[in-house]
Amino acid sequence: MEQTRERIVRAAAKLFLTRSYHAVGIADLCAAADVRKGSFYHFFPSKADLAKAVIDLHAAEFDKQLTAAQDEGLYAVAVAVTQVQGRFEERFGRIVGCPFGNLAAELSTTDDELRAHVADVFARWEQRLLAACRRYDVPDETARMILAQIQGLILLAKVQQRPAAEITAGLRTLIAGVTA
Amino acid sequence: MEQTRERIVRAAAKLFLTRSYHAVGIADLCAAADVRKGSFYHFFPSKADLAKAVIDLHAAEFDKQLTAAQDEGLYAVAVAVTQVQGRFEERFGRIVGCPFGNLAAELSTTDDELRAHVADVFARWEQRLLAACRRYDVPDETARMILAQIQGLILLAKVQQRPAAEITAGLRTLIAGVTA
Repeated sequence: MEQTRERIVRAAAKLFLTRSYHAVGIADLCAAADVRKGSFYHFFPSKADLAKAVIDLHAAEFDKQLTAAQDEGLYAVAVAVTQVQGRFEERFGRIVGCPFGNLAAELSTTDDELRAHVADVFARWEQRLLAACRRYDVPDETARMILAQIQGLILLAKVQQRPAAEITAGLRTLIAGVTA
Repeated sequence: MEQTRERIVRAAAKLFLTRSYHAVGIADLCAAADVRKGSFYHFFPSKADLAKAVIDLHAAEFDKQLTAAQDEGLYAVAVAVTQVQGRFEERFGRIVGCPFGNLAAELSTTDDELRAHVADVFARWEQRLLAACRRYDVPDETARMILAQIQGLILLAKVQQRPAAEITAGLRTLIAGVTA
């Protein structure tokens, strides 16, 4: 049972990332996860419930990467973003966007529960950046600046089909500037 | 005739911004513009053709704002973004996102022609920023940093339901830092 649920979430994570939330239907999700509709609805009464599970999966993975890199100080976030975006690039052959940013852009005005769920991820992320800023004596407002820079760089790399390495380079330039 | 076309483009600009590209159907667009389907397809053989016209409308408006603010030097872009986002906030009661960033996030992996059309807008925008950087003796890479910051700040304000004033403040902080 748990395996079926997991298979649905992983299939959805891939399809939402490589296409978009609205572009993927329940039938596509069932086909990709190899489950029947009845089984799908048993685990997820709606596509929005599934989207929450997808967000949680990505958030857990990102948290893990950020914790693993914490010895890098303020650059930990650059290491974590590089890990995650580099893996997507390897898997999909291009930058497909930030899993949180994509859903934020697409759904914030049309599904307030999903908007709030994504906003919570960003709030926790900003808190971790804020803690790092305070540890290294950098102004508080830098946390938001770094978070915004990550989102903007990933979005530009996605639309301009640039490599993940440019996201890393841009992010390191900003962090070097604010810590100089 | 020209008025009908214009009415369709303006209705689409509003609906794509306040909802999303995929969430809006041809029937919604015809109802909002008060035109019949036959008339719609006469002007726009597909929704993607309409999206291009919507992008061009926003790009012309943004160019105008940027030119009007050019005496502000590197801050011109902050003035222009404030104008555009402030107007959306007044009209829709919230931050609905950047018209280019929203479409970039939603469509880059599913419609390559639209992706390229949005990428062109960003490329022209970055060129204008680059010219301003050179005029004020700021490193070239600052152009991309500012563009990414704008996109990230607007996206965060959209998902966290923050006011347009925070986008302006964040952007001015970044520009003040790079020109200090």
